[in-house]
Amino acid sequence: MTASAASGGIMKTVNIGLLGLGNIGTGTYKVLEMNRSQIEKAAGSQVAIAQILEKDVSKQRDINVAPALFTQNPDDIFNNPEIDIVIELLGGIEPATTFMLDAMKRKKHVVTANKAAVAANFDKLMNCAKENNVIFRFEASVAGGIPILNAITSVLQGNEFYEVMGIVNGTTNYILTQMTDNGLEYDDVLKVAQEKGFAEADPTDDVEGIDVANKLTILMSLMFGKYVKPGDIPTEGISKITKKQIEDAKAQGCKIKLLANAKNLDGKFEYSVKPTLLKENHPLCGVSNEFNAVFVSGNAVGDLMFYGKGAGPLPTGSAVLGDVIEIAKAINGA
Amino acid sequence: MTASAASGGIMKTVNIGLLGLGNIGTGTYKVLEMNRSQIEKAAGSQVAIAQILEKDVSKQRDINVAPALFTQNPDDIFNNPEIDIVIELLGGIEPATTFMLDAMKRKKHVVTANKAAVAANFDKLMNCAKENNVIFRFEASVAGGIPILNAITSVLQGNEFYEVMGIVNGTTNYILTQMTDNGLEYDDVLKVAQEKGFAEADPTDDVEGIDVANKLTILMSLMFGKYVKPGDIPTEGISKITKKQIEDAKAQGCKIKLLANAKNLDGKFEYSVKPTLLKENHPLCGVSNEFNAVFVSGNAVGDLMFYGKGAGPLPTGSAVLGDVIEIAKAINGA
Repeated sequence: MTASAASGGIMKTVNIGLLGLGNIGTGTYKVLEMNRSQIEKAAGSQVAIAQILEKDVSKQRDINVAPALFTQNPDDIFNNPEIDIVIELLGGIEPATTFMLDAMKRKKHVVTANKAAVAANFDKLMNCAKENNVIFRFEASVAGGIPILNAITSVLQGNEFYEVMGIVNGTTNYILTQMTDNGLEYDDVLKVAQEKGFAEADPTDDVEGIDVANKLTILMSLMFGKYVKPGDIPTEGISKITKKQIEDAKAQGCKIKLLANAKNLDGKFEYSVKPTLLKENHPLCGVSNEFNAVFVSGNAVGDLMFYGKGAGPLPTGSAVLGDVIEIAKAINGA
Repeated sequence: MTASAASGGIMKTVNIGLLGLGNIGTGTYKVLEMNRSQIEKAAGSQVAIAQILEKDVSKQRDINVAPALFTQNPDDIFNNPEIDIVIELLGGIEPATTFMLDAMKRKKHVVTANKAAVAANFDKLMNCAKENNVIFRFEASVAGGIPILNAITSVLQGNEFYEVMGIVNGTTNYILTQMTDNGLEYDDVLKVAQEKGFAEADPTDDVEGIDVANKLTILMSLMFGKYVKPGDIPTEGISKITKKQIEDAKAQGCKIKLLANAKNLDGKFEYSVKPTLLKENHPLCGVSNEFNAVFVSGNAVGDLMFYGKGAGPLPTGSAVLGDVIEIAKAINGA
């Protein structure tokens, strides 16, 4: 939507150091290979993955990575003067946070999909980026492929936000949808979800709402300028939801959804993560299985909803590369 | 979501020349007054409406505009060296297009909500912006307050898009919703809609799908790089839809929606604007009354939907000011 000046001169290559080549790292790599021409056109330069921090070099992946790209020492990446952007896809609070701070201190722009690290260390990471005059983006950390963070921090900034409501965890939404549509008990659905790879072997972070609380911390920080530690958000998961509760909800014309909700009541904040009854005509009620959606209300724009895939290697890779494109544009002065 | 350097030095005021102080102009003015502090914080500078092109100076408006701001000569604005951004809210293809080109040639950045002008003169406007090294943004021209254009031209650029489907006209969606929910005939609903101000006295552009075709031209240009003149898009409106057709659709578990649809089939394009049967479990089926929604499919992100208010002075003003914020950031080097 923007027409700006075609920049003259020779195109620079934007070089990426990738921390972690697991599912999301591999997805990001694939999206870059698959859509290289439009990504580079949008970025205004070539984009190359120049180095990869990964212990498991010999693992079978359906991508072709030159063995010379791998390193097991993160400092190789942080001290590499050719690297412009570090993408952190290790997950977990540490060492991911320390790595991101180290990268910023070496003047690398940073992109991450890591909600736990961003939620735990929001101010520290934002301040470190500011102090080092680098860009820090984390679109993929909330609702995967859905570009909600970019919207609320750019073109929706002409609004004061009242409320955010989100279905932002695919695993729990899949479980609740299957319980609702097929009249099943929680334990039975969880077992199938684990077999299909939709739920982790240890599903605690997902089913107890911890992952959702991380995402709500990030949303509140960006929308309301209000930081609340994930552990301080009243959080209830779905592991105690019964078939009977879902049937009772249905009888009232409702569905049970695991909702992240925060309200800004003239500077007084209410927030929670909990299973919530939604009427069938509510826009979030129709969000099924692995889909995510975020509903926001602003004082100018009114109600908005963003819907899409909240997880998965390719949607998450799309969000990671969206951030890379925006940073590359800034580097290239586009 | 972006942390970038705090810029030192004295803050510049970004000055706006506003073309047109009708409904949308007044809404934009109101949103700026209402949310000035967060808009200026986001923009990185003060934002002022410095001059307004408007014939009807004496009209009663519920905003306070200093009479000295008004001019009836557009050149006063284009030749004013203090003006950084021209916002065009006159509507219609001409003189709006000529005014936008004139503004760009005088090195003003341009923001518009005018789908007819952008759709008719897409290449001319984009090229003129490029040649004059100014930014041209038109978020409000498609789906009002919904930030769809920004998403597809920034963070979703890591995708190849397959398809776009949109409910992008509030008047026709209101009419179809009322016919569906209340079992009414088209003519009866149109009359009430006109009385309530939801439909124009001459509703042709809306009800015959012309407005929707303009928006589809813009979406296809941005998503597929494929320009099709609105007049070359096969277009069918809703004026011949009967109560009986809606009842027949219901009997099949469907609703009739006026849909803009375009597909990219490996570089072969299919596109149309027409009343379309949607199954009740389709995400677009629940979009009622004046709400709009745009559904897009990308090869990395999968299916995404954006939902919100597609018209109205405040939602449209939100989109216009979102563009102003993004331009102000570029001016201020944020």
